[in-house]
Amino acid sequence: MLPRGRPRALGAALLLLLLLVVGFFLFGRDPEYGLGTTATLDGDPYGSRNRSTSSLQLLLPPKCEMLHVAIVCAGYNSSREIITLMKSVLFYRKNPLHLHLITDAVARNILETLFRTWMVPAVVVSFYDAEELKPLVSWIPNKHYSGLYGLMKLVLPSVLPLSLARVIVLDTDVTFSSDIMELWALFGHFSGVILLWLDRLQQIGWEQMWKLTAKRELLTLTATSLADQDIFNAVIKEHPELVHPLPCVWNVQLSDHTLAERCYLEAADLKVIHWNSPKKLRVKNKHAEFFRDLHLTFLGFDGKLLCRELFGCPNQFPPGVEQLQQALAQLDEEEPCFEFRQQQLTVHRVHITFLSHQPPPPRPHDVTLVAQLSMDRLQMLEALCRHWRGPMSLALYLTDAEAQQFLRFVETSPVLSARKDVAYHVVYRDGPLYPVNQLRNVALAQALTPYVFLSDIDFLPAYSLYDYLRASIEQLALGRRQRKAALVVPAFETLHYRFSFPNSKAELLTLLDAGSLHTFRYHEWPQGHASTDYTRWREAQAPYRVQWSADYEPYVVVPRDCPRYDPRFVGFGWNKVAHIIELDAQEYEFLVLPEAFSIHLPHAPSLDISRFRSSPTYRDCLQALKEEFHQDLSRRYGSAALKYLTALQQSRSRA
Amino acid sequence: MLPRGRPRALGAALLLLLLLVVGFFLFGRDPEYGLGTTATLDGDPYGSRNRSTSSLQLLLPPKCEMLHVAIVCAGYNSSREIITLMKSVLFYRKNPLHLHLITDAVARNILETLFRTWMVPAVVVSFYDAEELKPLVSWIPNKHYSGLYGLMKLVLPSVLPLSLARVIVLDTDVTFSSDIMELWALFGHFSGVILLWLDRLQQIGWEQMWKLTAKRELLTLTATSLADQDIFNAVIKEHPELVHPLPCVWNVQLSDHTLAERCYLEAADLKVIHWNSPKKLRVKNKHAEFFRDLHLTFLGFDGKLLCRELFGCPNQFPPGVEQLQQALAQLDEEEPCFEFRQQQLTVHRVHITFLSHQPPPPRPHDVTLVAQLSMDRLQMLEALCRHWRGPMSLALYLTDAEAQQFLRFVETSPVLSARKDVAYHVVYRDGPLYPVNQLRNVALAQALTPYVFLSDIDFLPAYSLYDYLRASIEQLALGRRQRKAALVVPAFETLHYRFSFPNSKAELLTLLDAGSLHTFRYHEWPQGHASTDYTRWREAQAPYRVQWSADYEPYVVVPRDCPRYDPRFVGFGWNKVAHIIELDAQEYEFLVLPEAFSIHLPHAPSLDISRFRSSPTYRDCLQALKEEFHQDLSRRYGSAALKYLTALQQSRSRA
Repeated sequence: MLPRGRPRALGAALLLLLLLVVGFFLFGRDPEYGLGTTATLDGDPYGSRNRSTSSLQLLLPPKCEMLHVAIVCAGYNSSREIITLMKSVLFYRKNPLHLHLITDAVARNILETLFRTWMVPAVVVSFYDAEELKPLVSWIPNKHYSGLYGLMKLVLPSVLPLSLARVIVLDTDVTFSSDIMELWALFGHFSGVILLWLDRLQQIGWEQMWKLTAKRELLTLTATSLADQDIFNAVIKEHPELVHPLPCVWNVQLSDHTLAERCYLEAADLKVIHWNSPKKLRVKNKHAEFFRDLHLTFLGFDGKLLCRELFGCPNQFPPGVEQLQQALAQLDEEEPCFEFRQQQLTVHRVHITFLSHQPPPPRPHDVTLVAQLSMDRLQMLEALCRHWRGPMSLALYLTDAEAQQFLRFVETSPVLSARKDVAYHVVYRDGPLYPVNQLRNVALAQALTPYVFLSDIDFLPAYSLYDYLRASIEQLALGRRQRKAALVVPAFETLHYRFSFPNSKAELLTLLDAGSLHTFRYHEWPQGHASTDYTRWREAQAPYRVQWSADYEPYVVVPRDCPRYDPRFVGFGWNKVAHIIELDAQEYEFLVLPEAFSIHLPHAPSLDISRFRSSPTYRDCLQALKEEFHQDLSRRYGSAALKYLTALQQSRSRA
Repeated sequence: MLPRGRPRALGAALLLLLLLVVGFFLFGRDPEYGLGTTATLDGDPYGSRNRSTSSLQLLLPPKCEMLHVAIVCAGYNSSREIITLMKSVLFYRKNPLHLHLITDAVARNILETLFRTWMVPAVVVSFYDAEELKPLVSWIPNKHYSGLYGLMKLVLPSVLPLSLARVIVLDTDVTFSSDIMELWALFGHFSGVILLWLDRLQQIGWEQMWKLTAKRELLTLTATSLADQDIFNAVIKEHPELVHPLPCVWNVQLSDHTLAERCYLEAADLKVIHWNSPKKLRVKNKHAEFFRDLHLTFLGFDGKLLCRELFGCPNQFPPGVEQLQQALAQLDEEEPCFEFRQQQLTVHRVHITFLSHQPPPPRPHDVTLVAQLSMDRLQMLEALCRHWRGPMSLALYLTDAEAQQFLRFVETSPVLSARKDVAYHVVYRDGPLYPVNQLRNVALAQALTPYVFLSDIDFLPAYSLYDYLRASIEQLALGRRQRKAALVVPAFETLHYRFSFPNSKAELLTLLDAGSLHTFRYHEWPQGHASTDYTRWREAQAPYRVQWSADYEPYVVVPRDCPRYDPRFVGFGWNKVAHIIELDAQEYEFLVLPEAFSIHLPHAPSLDISRFRSSPTYRDCLQALKEEFHQDLSRRYGSAALKYLTALQQSRSRA
């Protein structure tokens, strides 16, 4: 048994080795394998006897055979790690995969959304509740939260389906540099061994075996807790005949340099690299560079590029994919608005709660700020956190590589890393047009309070706004069923970067009169906020009701179950206007709050805006979208929707 | 022979097939291969007889054997394509590579810089002048410029070294999805064939053979020109015994769908995918998606991650790499300014003239605008093109994926794609700090006119500036040897996005008096431009000389051979100040131009600035850099440099 004082790296590396072995004997029930010889642990944990893998590769599994992989995954960080692992597996794989994910509620929520939106062909994902396994291992004292999840690998058989003959068990912190099929092939190579083990398992019983060992260890160990690898090590010490070590190329790790190097110098072909912490990436060592580069490759790899079909295997599409492909195939590439149509149909891979998050405690009048952004607005986040002290749900439109930059940005910002009530949802980039309303819907769907403040990332709310909104919601008794209201937060703008934010409505009015502040888009798009009636707002002491008018697009506070944004509006233009029409059509009353305000900060025009501002096609397509939106509106709301169409036609005739 | 009317795709695909074969017989002089059987062309271009590659893989070359690859590459577009090809080769390769690149001047200039700065271990690059081969093929009528380069593959033996026994010849538009070693291994497999071909070559002579065939074809063909594949096809038709077809997995292409699919369905393992044009990426076909994803993977692949050493092979570092590694190894990671030290030592991969470029005709007073930017300033480019009608040399700090976005951005912009006198140099991102002065030096080194205007990307010059500068240079007779001058272009700023740019100095002064414009950084950093003496400038009718003062950092026009920027200044701060000190120390006189001006547009603070503005360590490190700069200055200029140190100390005591 390994002394417990050894660096975690080596222990964890062995853990992988052993878990793979666990796969062999716990699930080796496949009757097609014949009798074979007994394998013994020869004291060489790197398995030098089987260093040459070329002979193993001849026993590849049949084409299109489903490979089973089980992974225990809990919490936010492991949910990120498992994606990099999966990218490396998907890059090299040629077989259908069935993932058996044993997850806590957090990881399940994240990974269910992720795999549903990733839509990788020939990948089946099953979830198992880690809670059910907890009682089976919670009697073992262990030092930290994640330790319990580590121990669960001991009891996997009790949660996985009985029909499963074999499974590869992986930690989340490994990177493949070869086809997982080759690892699966080792089952075949050691087939006799598996049958033999099955016999012994029947005789001895694995469950009693490891429990007895663990209890005995607990009596004699000076340490007060046991980790899973301690138990595996102890069992193996007592029953060396259970173990057949894997060739070392299947578990290359860095911490014990000499042994690792001996392995891959001779094998010349790495299969799996095992990491323990991202810090390991900083090791200064020429071979470490190789491993780091491979890891970084998959960390920043565009997951979309891994949705490759398997040639020559029966199609195994996740639900909805085939309809989607048909819809995409029916689009006419020559049509001028083709890019719009395509973008509307695009399903974006979504990673909800990308970073650690503490959901807000349930409070009846609580409000979440909802917004979306891309990389070029990241510098707004710190200021936003200072202005809004409540929960936020933010959708970020990023590439896989940018998501890593974003992670580092938050980690190095004391302001951002201190805030656990901000949920960041990464929506991965795909397509030329900015899917603004799809982003808003992701952020909106993940808001966990009864109310949401639908804002934009380039606005800073009044410092008091969070408290004021909650008080207003309570006073206006919005919780009552009969009241369907949208609270309007009046919008202003400054054209200066350096500007001292007003601490009150009085200060704001002074700045407005001095010309340092303006009502939002007063010069370019007055109709966007005309209905808010800024003149009345100056004097108002109480909330007042206003009527919808054409092109109205105020920032509003509404119940979380409000209508979603219309995802057909991609790119820029009319995305909020359509949502406000929807609210009006559903008879939300618009109530302007007398003390609420929010101020738009200046920024350079975004690349997407610059790219399309000058394009007449773009404007024509937007017009077509508007018309289709109105047709749908008439269909759903009947004659009540006529006023919106009239308004649209009037505004067009004015233009 | 294939009819000439067939789509180019198939022809080009066959070209690859044949070129690989050419490699076999033109360079098959290796005496170690024994006698063998004759191979014949069996009329199946997909080589179904050899469809199973597993047997071939058993004849892998010895570990660490050098593999030779020859590629003809000319012009800007092929220089980009070859990089994607090389990334795919490098990702899978396990052997040292020797690239034999037959290039025109443009490609050589680009690729020499690229490979020198890429510093990939175990890759040797040799260049051969395509000009030398032109006379050998220019007698063959062919339709377009690139056709001549295609024909050069016929005469490769006359330029490659005689000692070269075997070489793989590749087109630039292929993507590997396997180790090129497996392709090399086919040489061994067909070894007998090679010897046999060699005999025949000696008897017949390849050169006479193809020339005769070509001439005969010219007599009978209705078309007025010949492409290289026409000649190959014709030779093969006459001498089928020369050809042994490659297994089809080595040349999978999309255009002939049935054949291609039959190939990979059976082989289940693709080796090389052959593209003809980026348009092919748009093919709507479920298998096309597989190919597209693989291509896009390497298009956006971070080239830095491919600088992996080969395990167990003697180290083959490009020049300078080992010294660099030693210097990096000597850095102390615990030192607070470690990141600065590391960033200073980083050699960035550089792709000069990333897009097509027409060098300016030589003119004695011409000026190139020099600046650098990253993705978040792309939207400045169109405005800059409208304001500056002369040549520009711009360095862009991008990831590989961003470089592709940039390419599309330029292609879709009529303003940018019309300008061929703007040279874009991509410097690939590496490290956490912005290497501002390294970027400026790349842009400066690539300026091709006798004078340069050293500007920043967020400034728009007066519309007349380009003409005015050239006239001033001529009038001031800067071309004379004794005159060492830096012409100062006074800098202003606006805080408003929407602002109408002044058409003259008079208009500018009006805006200045109205408070719509300010002198640059008047409020935050007046010393940066104090020496320019704006009061005097208002009235000035002729250029006037000003003296250096502490922290002076004007925008200047200088001869192209001016001192370089000090690359130690990474991140933000003092990078221009140090350069101006250097000019002053070298006794450049500063002459302010009375009609010149340039205006800074507002933008949100960059991410790098936001990240470090609040960091005391950052400021301490900048201070340390300044002091080291002054020590170097004293060393180089002796007591003359004392005034700079005194100024620094005074400014520090004021702070």
